Amino acid sequence: MKPSIPKGTRDFSPQEMVKRNYIFDTIRKVYQSYGYQPIETPAFENSETLMGKYGEEGDRLIFKILNSGNYIDDLPPGFPMPSKFEDNRQFTRLISEKALRYDLTVPFARYVVQHRNDITFPFKRYQIQPVWRADRPQKGRYREFYQCDADVIGSDSLLNEVELIQIIDEVFTKLGVPVIIKINNRKILQGIAELIDAPDRMIDIAVAIDKIDKIGIEGVMEELKEKKFTTVQINFFRSLLTEEGKLNFFTAYSSLGFNQKLQVGIDEVEKIFSTINKSKINKVEFELSLARGLNYYTGTIIEVKADPSKSTFTSSICGGGRYDDLTGIFGLPDVSGVGISFGADRIYDVIEELGLFPKEIEATTKVLVLNNSEKLITQCLHLVKLLHDEKISAQFYPDDFNPKKGGKQIDYASKMGIPFVVSINEDQLIDKPYKVKRVDGQGQWQTVSLDELISMIK
Amino acid sequence: MKPSIPKGTRDFSPQEMVKRNYIFDTIRKVYQSYGYQPIETPAFENSETLMGKYGEEGDRLIFKILNSGNYIDDLPPGFPMPSKFEDNRQFTRLISEKALRYDLTVPFARYVVQHRNDITFPFKRYQIQPVWRADRPQKGRYREFYQCDADVIGSDSLLNEVELIQIIDEVFTKLGVPVIIKINNRKILQGIAELIDAPDRMIDIAVAIDKIDKIGIEGVMEELKEKKFTTVQINFFRSLLTEEGKLNFFTAYSSLGFNQKLQVGIDEVEKIFSTINKSKINKVEFELSLARGLNYYTGTIIEVKADPSKSTFTSSICGGGRYDDLTGIFGLPDVSGVGISFGADRIYDVIEELGLFPKEIEATTKVLVLNNSEKLITQCLHLVKLLHDEKISAQFYPDDFNPKKGGKQIDYASKMGIPFVVSINEDQLIDKPYKVKRVDGQGQWQTVSLDELISMIK
Repeated sequence: MKPSIPKGTRDFSPQEMVKRNYIFDTIRKVYQSYGYQPIETPAFENSETLMGKYGEEGDRLIFKILNSGNYIDDLPPGFPMPSKFEDNRQFTRLISEKALRYDLTVPFARYVVQHRNDITFPFKRYQIQPVWRADRPQKGRYREFYQCDADVIGSDSLLNEVELIQIIDEVFTKLGVPVIIKINNRKILQGIAELIDAPDRMIDIAVAIDKIDKIGIEGVMEELKEKKFTTVQINFFRSLLTEEGKLNFFTAYSSLGFNQKLQVGIDEVEKIFSTINKSKINKVEFELSLARGLNYYTGTIIEVKADPSKSTFTSSICGGGRYDDLTGIFGLPDVSGVGISFGADRIYDVIEELGLFPKEIEATTKVLVLNNSEKLITQCLHLVKLLHDEKISAQFYPDDFNPKKGGKQIDYASKMGIPFVVSINEDQLIDKPYKVKRVDGQGQWQTVSLDELISMIK
Repeated sequence: MKPSIPKGTRDFSPQEMVKRNYIFDTIRKVYQSYGYQPIETPAFENSETLMGKYGEEGDRLIFKILNSGNYIDDLPPGFPMPSKFEDNRQFTRLISEKALRYDLTVPFARYVVQHRNDITFPFKRYQIQPVWRADRPQKGRYREFYQCDADVIGSDSLLNEVELIQIIDEVFTKLGVPVIIKINNRKILQGIAELIDAPDRMIDIAVAIDKIDKIGIEGVMEELKEKKFTTVQINFFRSLLTEEGKLNFFTAYSSLGFNQKLQVGIDEVEKIFSTINKSKINKVEFELSLARGLNYYTGTIIEVKADPSKSTFTSSICGGGRYDDLTGIFGLPDVSGVGISFGADRIYDVIEELGLFPKEIEATTKVLVLNNSEKLITQCLHLVKLLHDEKISAQFYPDDFNPKKGGKQIDYASKMGIPFVVSINEDQLIDKPYKVKRVDGQGQWQTVSLDELISMIK
């Protein structure tokens, strides 16, 4: 029986790890340089912290942990065992009190409320940890994946949005990934929905307008008709848009007297754009159809995709937005926050597709010290230490005192991508105590001093 | 209702995170410099991968994950619900197929077997990830904690042991923690047990001899008597020890003809010591009473404690050993391995007690750019970018365009441990465009150029 892992989960090999760490380290360094501070929260939370925060569908997808010990004995007296075809939610609550985190945002809100007396606001935190979702696994969708979040909480200044957009730009510039950053504002969408007298149907409107590239402006209107919007609503909505589905500022402004929300949303977007432009950040576009699924957003929303002229990946690789009352669910109302999250797995796929992983991250060891003679072991171990002191990663081949098997060691170096092999010069020359060879290609053995060895490797 | 987290788990604040990352980074760098490569495995494994690998007690302490969906419906036809006071293990198997990892060693063994065709042996891997145990929480014992493991698999050379001891020495030297590294060999303990005709009772013997500091050599013999060892066994055992409870090599060797295992164990320890001594590593002691609980060890065992003359912490902060057949449980027999694991939480406590955390790791941001005037925002954002280009972490205070509230911003810098505040010189001098002040103490505002600013901060 071949051992395996649960579906939707992954092992990461050394080759994958160095690439993943390159992405995480890049994000982490940019976050830190802007003063975001790291926190970590537990892998599992009390169920009541998570349940009900992600909608009915979310509740189903949360992994629940069985209570420890003989949990059957702990059931309340007289509780009937559930029978088949019966909803098992009530039973689940009795045998499970903890659940794996589903995202980093809700645990962060819980953290802020729990530790509010120890936190200096505005609180800028980042968090890079895995999350778990019992989604049906499919290509590019996993049951365990990392999120890389940064949020500012306790400040309603739009400069936070500007800073987060700057961070997005800096991360993707460092990674070499060309991107398009789209922004919108929930107040604009909500304002339009209210303007056409459909205040609860913001998402329906956004979903429809999102399809404009495929079905055109009249197709969008058709879609709204199917969704039972009235002709009056549809005509009014149509009058707010240009032929390309952009906001028609002329019509919108002439209607603005009726809707303050729309006005505020437009002002916010304009303010962000004017500040960003001055800082010369590129590739930022206003996109009216951008809605994002998460219900807690109330202002700016941000979504990033790889530049479609360069990459075939069309899904979002980073996103975020402003939420006015995330901590309210834990009893601390009226604290505004704004955050972003990088999708490391999708960024990995784009970097791989574009061949952008730097070559130098792939080899973790620079030097293999060969093990050719038992009496030279002490000198070999000493050489490893000397190289480490020079910040050169070096390892000693542990097996095999048999000099005839030297080829096996060089083979190992080659397979491991170690560029240099070194051995002690058995003639014991005082000024040239080492022999060194490049593993790839037709390198010859060279007899060298320690200084020569170090400068050659560096 | 105040939000909380499950007992035995922890949130880590930014202040704790920087200290923890200092420990993890130190360990990671040393592992990497010796050619150990990172891997990661999923947080949860199939239950059959973990169950039965840690003994009866371990099985109870493994956190189980409830199956998704309506798991009651998925029960086999006619399966009766468990009643109270009945063992719930059979029911658990039906409603839970996954479990959180309990350590990193068993998932690693599973990884090696599953990916054996892609691995170049000897395989040197490190892994730094959390593990979960449903232990009763108490001071210093948590239900979620990180392990930092390194193992070499597929090589039976004792040079691996030597290297791992070198790694231990290097990590604690870098952290500044004085330690005592104790080593023993399971073959010695097993050899003694066999010699006195009690081959199954190695652990009993080790537990008794471990108490010699408290109860003396005769106390140890008393303990064995209580444990129903015979007088002949006890007398023979006594003859193998010195008054201090060390191995009496004279008597042991005279008995060695009877026991090859003891001979091999002693040879292995001697070989390690002779190689280590030549590399000038200190503080390594042979300790006959060292046994370590884990059943899979078969050769060398290693345990590290803080130097008791410097620290009050007496528990083990690092440990490890050789196992001859770990992958056998997954169908790949006869692969020898040896590994170590650092206990980050306990190392944290020792470093904190001894005041050894470096001061410079505590401030994450170096510069706060003050937000004093709306019309200078662009220049402020530009300054943040210029400082980042010089690898100086800098952030802009987002709130507050009101110049009267400048004090609040400096207060924020002070609370956050940010050492410098900078603002744009409103006189707009071309050669001295900035004003800078140290936050701590009685610093004065100085008018400076960009170069002066950078050299001051660096």
